Amino acid sequence: MKKKILVLGAGMSASSLIKYLLDRSSELNWEVIVTARSTEKAQSKLEGNPNGTPKAFDINNIETLPELVADSDAVISLLPAKYHPVVAQECLKQGKHLFTTSYVSPEMKAMDAEAKAKGLLFLNECGVDPGIDHMSAMKIIDEINHSGGTLKSFESNTGGLVAPEFDNNPWNYKFTWNARNVILAGQAGAKYLQDKKYKYIPYQQLFKRTYRISVLEYGEFDVYGNRDSLSYREVYDLQNIDTLFRGTLRRPGYCQAYDAFIQLGMTDDSYTMENSDKLTYRDYLEAFLPYRDGVSVEDNFCLTTGMEKGSDMYNKFVWLGIFENTQVKLANATPAQVLQEIIEPKWALGSKDLDMIVMQHRFVYELNGKTMERKSSLVVIGEDQVHTAMSITVGVPLAIAVKLFLTGEMKASGVVIPVKPEVYTPLLNELENFGVKFIEEEKEL
Amino acid sequence: MKKKILVLGAGMSASSLIKYLLDRSSELNWEVIVTARSTEKAQSKLEGNPNGTPKAFDINNIETLPELVADSDAVISLLPAKYHPVVAQECLKQGKHLFTTSYVSPEMKAMDAEAKAKGLLFLNECGVDPGIDHMSAMKIIDEINHSGGTLKSFESNTGGLVAPEFDNNPWNYKFTWNARNVILAGQAGAKYLQDKKYKYIPYQQLFKRTYRISVLEYGEFDVYGNRDSLSYREVYDLQNIDTLFRGTLRRPGYCQAYDAFIQLGMTDDSYTMENSDKLTYRDYLEAFLPYRDGVSVEDNFCLTTGMEKGSDMYNKFVWLGIFENTQVKLANATPAQVLQEIIEPKWALGSKDLDMIVMQHRFVYELNGKTMERKSSLVVIGEDQVHTAMSITVGVPLAIAVKLFLTGEMKASGVVIPVKPEVYTPLLNELENFGVKFIEEEKEL
Repeated sequence: MKKKILVLGAGMSASSLIKYLLDRSSELNWEVIVTARSTEKAQSKLEGNPNGTPKAFDINNIETLPELVADSDAVISLLPAKYHPVVAQECLKQGKHLFTTSYVSPEMKAMDAEAKAKGLLFLNECGVDPGIDHMSAMKIIDEINHSGGTLKSFESNTGGLVAPEFDNNPWNYKFTWNARNVILAGQAGAKYLQDKKYKYIPYQQLFKRTYRISVLEYGEFDVYGNRDSLSYREVYDLQNIDTLFRGTLRRPGYCQAYDAFIQLGMTDDSYTMENSDKLTYRDYLEAFLPYRDGVSVEDNFCLTTGMEKGSDMYNKFVWLGIFENTQVKLANATPAQVLQEIIEPKWALGSKDLDMIVMQHRFVYELNGKTMERKSSLVVIGEDQVHTAMSITVGVPLAIAVKLFLTGEMKASGVVIPVKPEVYTPLLNELENFGVKFIEEEKEL
Repeated sequence: MKKKILVLGAGMSASSLIKYLLDRSSELNWEVIVTARSTEKAQSKLEGNPNGTPKAFDINNIETLPELVADSDAVISLLPAKYHPVVAQECLKQGKHLFTTSYVSPEMKAMDAEAKAKGLLFLNECGVDPGIDHMSAMKIIDEINHSGGTLKSFESNTGGLVAPEFDNNPWNYKFTWNARNVILAGQAGAKYLQDKKYKYIPYQQLFKRTYRISVLEYGEFDVYGNRDSLSYREVYDLQNIDTLFRGTLRRPGYCQAYDAFIQLGMTDDSYTMENSDKLTYRDYLEAFLPYRDGVSVEDNFCLTTGMEKGSDMYNKFVWLGIFENTQVKLANATPAQVLQEIIEPKWALGSKDLDMIVMQHRFVYELNGKTMERKSSLVVIGEDQVHTAMSITVGVPLAIAVKLFLTGEMKASGVVIPVKPEVYTPLLNELENFGVKFIEEEKEL
């Protein structure tokens, strides 16, 4: 009998997932029901494959969800994360399996017992970060444990960037994902564990307190802390680890420069500015600088931030056009919204540009009296504008998981994330066919 | 017939207000009904005056409010500001006048038309800041306008500090008011107007972007921005002013030093720390410093903040005991709560210490082709531990307003703040009897 896979949401990350499912649909006897706000948009994702069925679905018209779920064997939700609990409740009610790439929310976690009791799998955090990071980290953590080693330190850093060939602006960054999230990144600060001590980095220090790493032949990156690293102690069962840190990767110079916006208050999203649409970019910048009589905005910016006029750092800001008399368009905008308006066209991914996902884990462990360091590094370059590195690394792991589950190669139930060998081993193996291949390096420290 | 004045709340600022009312109660034929959580506590505020009646009232048992309001001619609410709308609604219902020292909330503002229609006065913002600042500023603004001058700039700065004779710690600061508010001060940043341009100062710049002023023979003070100065354009009818700034006063050095806590994230109140009650003060500080292998907490603190060991600035922190191995008591505490635990006993007002309120307005205006500067300065020193400068300056203006209104010397209705001559003139005149006397200085610039 034909198995029906329902895909809710056909946004940026859906393309590679849908392609994976459709490519195997004839062989595995699947019907792939793809939904989007309009049937046309859903249709456009199917590339004429006869096993694909387009349907219109809008999460704001939730009353159509039960019918869609009823007519499926497995549900994939790529909707914004806040909608997953609603979908999960419907799956629970109708006895359907659910697959998402999002973090397990408390609401989702609360459904674990009932899902288990009904023999349902609710697989979450099965994209790139979270997802590939879990799988690749747990593979090595399990290896170290099995070899009798004692893990002392684990750092895991990931970044979504532009591929080196297209990395041609002074910030060495382009938006390969939601621009607003990049503008607001880090506002919650970061927590981590170092030498068994808790460390807290507030937002105003986050982009200052960076460190530099090298990844394979891809050169250097700066790392800034990524939210609450401590939560991974439980997830990865690392209760006795000394150092646990998760970070985000940017090219050298980016963090130090972006920090100027943070220090000046230009990333604040908590209040709206007076008459924002009456300001020019230059006025907007000046509003965050202290008053200095008769001093140009350029000189005031340098005096305030400590930058040198004409330096590489300073030129990043000139290149953004922030000293220019261009009119701000947004009315009643927060500082962060205006900043996004200024930056977004400058950091836009060009129509021929490819993106890049970079991930590196670093483990320090003790074995037979020796202290060893193992690095595991991944770089994925996008194939084209549709099958971006982001779309591949977010969508393909989830698609593989669905396949392994529906073909019976993977068995699990309850609310699950991919940290067990029976899940991550076949997934990581197959991901290598998609260029998702970790390179390991090991040395004695 | 005897007039009944209901005083809701008998906290720190109530003493001078109650004394003022009771002192005049025989002459003016008043009964002053003072409420507190317990009748005993209310009784203790009456000092045996037969015109005082103690009653128990707890805002959490709101059902007793209608009866209290019914048995009064005027209601004074010194309850926390969030409760004023509830009290105001009851006053509206029963046709009673209301007096508070708090900012007019949107809910309060919405009652203006109905209060006016019923001939009721709801007087707000009639303490020190807001209150005395409004009255003393408007007096001069009106004078400048009447003389034909054009006001170009208005700065208004206020601080609650320890009196010079008792100013004997390295921070030159003691808590004369709610400690938690001082620890969290400034988190919303500040907005102001300078040379017709809007200026925004984020929290992470607020204690850096200070300026220094002198007040009479009381020496120097540093000023940091106080929230939204822009709102005063409307309140004071200053639509065409070039510069409008409100600030908070501290002794020189305080802001620069306190900024270290802000920069390190130690004033954050948005999350709780892991195992806060397992930490010593020293551990707590170290948790906010970057990891530096083999570096002492003292050296790390200096490296991170740029302070010099042994400097006056550094010694402020040594004096707080923050490098010591004293155990933190609070469990599940936010960084700000732990900081308060450390600082509160150190900055406590001693049993013989007197407090001080300092206020200075600076006006720049043009008149007959000349640019004039006028300063208006106020310093009030507390009388004793009960009648503190804070209690006098918060409570007496409101008490005078109640008297002026009940004796018919002041007429007004609706939701009002003291910015009109018919209110501020008699109030400022009588305040001089309580040591609340502004000294004016004027010169041509």
